[in-house]
Amino acid sequence: MTAHPGREFRLASRPDGEPTLDNFDLVEVEVPDPGPGQVLVRNLFISVDPYMRPRMNDVPSYVPPFQVGKALDGGAVGEVIASGSDDVKVGDLVVHDLGWRDLALVRSKYMHVVDPAIAPSLYLGALGMPGLTAYVGLLDVAEFRPGDTVFVSGAAGAVGGMVGQIAKLRGAARVIGSAGSPEKVAYLTDQLGFDAAFNYREGPVRRALKAAAPEGIDVYFDNVGGEHLEAAISSLKVGGRVALCGMIGSYNATGGGTGPANLSLAIGKRLTLRGFIVTDHQGRLPALRDEAGSWLRDGRLVCNETIVDGLANTPDAFIGLLRGRNTGKMVVRV
Amino acid sequence: MTAHPGREFRLASRPDGEPTLDNFDLVEVEVPDPGPGQVLVRNLFISVDPYMRPRMNDVPSYVPPFQVGKALDGGAVGEVIASGSDDVKVGDLVVHDLGWRDLALVRSKYMHVVDPAIAPSLYLGALGMPGLTAYVGLLDVAEFRPGDTVFVSGAAGAVGGMVGQIAKLRGAARVIGSAGSPEKVAYLTDQLGFDAAFNYREGPVRRALKAAAPEGIDVYFDNVGGEHLEAAISSLKVGGRVALCGMIGSYNATGGGTGPANLSLAIGKRLTLRGFIVTDHQGRLPALRDEAGSWLRDGRLVCNETIVDGLANTPDAFIGLLRGRNTGKMVVRV
Repeated sequence: MTAHPGREFRLASRPDGEPTLDNFDLVEVEVPDPGPGQVLVRNLFISVDPYMRPRMNDVPSYVPPFQVGKALDGGAVGEVIASGSDDVKVGDLVVHDLGWRDLALVRSKYMHVVDPAIAPSLYLGALGMPGLTAYVGLLDVAEFRPGDTVFVSGAAGAVGGMVGQIAKLRGAARVIGSAGSPEKVAYLTDQLGFDAAFNYREGPVRRALKAAAPEGIDVYFDNVGGEHLEAAISSLKVGGRVALCGMIGSYNATGGGTGPANLSLAIGKRLTLRGFIVTDHQGRLPALRDEAGSWLRDGRLVCNETIVDGLANTPDAFIGLLRGRNTGKMVVRV
Repeated sequence: MTAHPGREFRLASRPDGEPTLDNFDLVEVEVPDPGPGQVLVRNLFISVDPYMRPRMNDVPSYVPPFQVGKALDGGAVGEVIASGSDDVKVGDLVVHDLGWRDLALVRSKYMHVVDPAIAPSLYLGALGMPGLTAYVGLLDVAEFRPGDTVFVSGAAGAVGGMVGQIAKLRGAARVIGSAGSPEKVAYLTDQLGFDAAFNYREGPVRRALKAAAPEGIDVYFDNVGGEHLEAAISSLKVGGRVALCGMIGSYNATGGGTGPANLSLAIGKRLTLRGFIVTDHQGRLPALRDEAGSWLRDGRLVCNETIVDGLANTPDAFIGLLRGRNTGKMVVRV
């Protein structure tokens, strides 16, 4: 039995507020040959995503917290270099959940072989978890209907950019996005086809949203919570719907926040606010890959990425993501 | 043409915070004979309800605000004393929307003739708008299922008492209510059959709710907002549902409140919060009257009332309602 030298990131300590490099340890490990049903994967791209930040806190949540001293994990795509499974062969490209490392020993039932004609990193973005989050959040959770006016926060991120594009491609009347820099705002309108976008750092979100959607909105896809959610509740029309997807604005918070002070408007406006977790909706992945795959082939879907090079820079990429340094999907090229 | 001497309450001025008697004027009026399609009704009981308080503010809402100098209105039940309609005859008991007065000139299409075998005031409570609010809020909006654990705030009120009883009669595993006095708490468990109840004035709602429902709740029917809503979000299980019905706690507020600081829990717990207005659901009134009527005949539904005597005391009754001085439905006997 051969051992393969690899490296993996472990959680050195739990972040107090914003993570720092000290919270992460890069450790050399020996990865064994795959046993029966196992596959050894050399990761090509690994994913950093906002949901990883709350997993670094020691609080029970919908996914178990990361453990101090143990390897981190997350989405990754790589090439099979040894296989103990009849279903997967050496050279296959596979997407799986053991990121934050270069060599991953994965059980074959926890991976998917992907289409080598498609850029592999897209399986971490548009065709992966972020794309599925946008797809089910907009279509199933917020019950999007053609003709709706849709507002999405964090719109220059991997999920938000997909939400806006899917809404347009599915017949939205108007799509509005918020982001945290003038460059991102321009990216939304110029590259992704948003009808309007604004920089939430330049003034009250409520005022910017009213200006962008004077007649109100039908759907709000919430990636950030806080002031954005309150502004959206103000702007929502009767029968409006909110998909509660993430509250990145609070992920680094150490004290208690405040909720939307205008939530009582939900009564008279008959609003529905609904939280969801993408892992409940894996059954919709084939539908996403069909529909978004076809848009990709037609050149109708823009998939921007912010690529950070080198496994060792994964914590930098992650911290940058939480600071909004990405446009589109943030990935690490191993 | 005869004129009938009557009295009606008008809004003298808009309340600033809690209403006072100065906000109301009792005015003598001359009510004409009914014209074609009209009916003259001598009101027997008139309704005071929490939703009337926000209508006294000059803000657009799901129902238009009351106008200063104009008559107030609301639910009432009375006897027809003159009729210009072929569908309604003198002596019929009818329920309609022109309360806050003794004589009401009503268009016959805006009233219903009711069953004289049933105490007429019940058409302002269990078989009327409060009952329908409880029925559709619990069954349709919160999608109650047998086996659910249900929590309702303002449980000793007209709506809350019905919510708890309908839940029990429909197969709830456990029903918990909150109210504002020891007497009301005893009323919930001893007379209405709640499994547990607590006085929200005696300590943190969150702690009382955890003690009453250690395994959490499936449904929260919200009549009050504020601390109750936050506590419910903490206690709701995965897939939990909230019917946002009223926020009586904020109706007299003059400043901005704060929303539930823990709303981000709605993501991981896949909660649904949904606001509703009973007038959207009038089509469910026959179902309520069938089902609740049958429970009434079997003695399985308790309909407590707090009755205030005399039209002149309607503002007192209304102010008392907002202070929680009622147990069950608050009505004025004209």
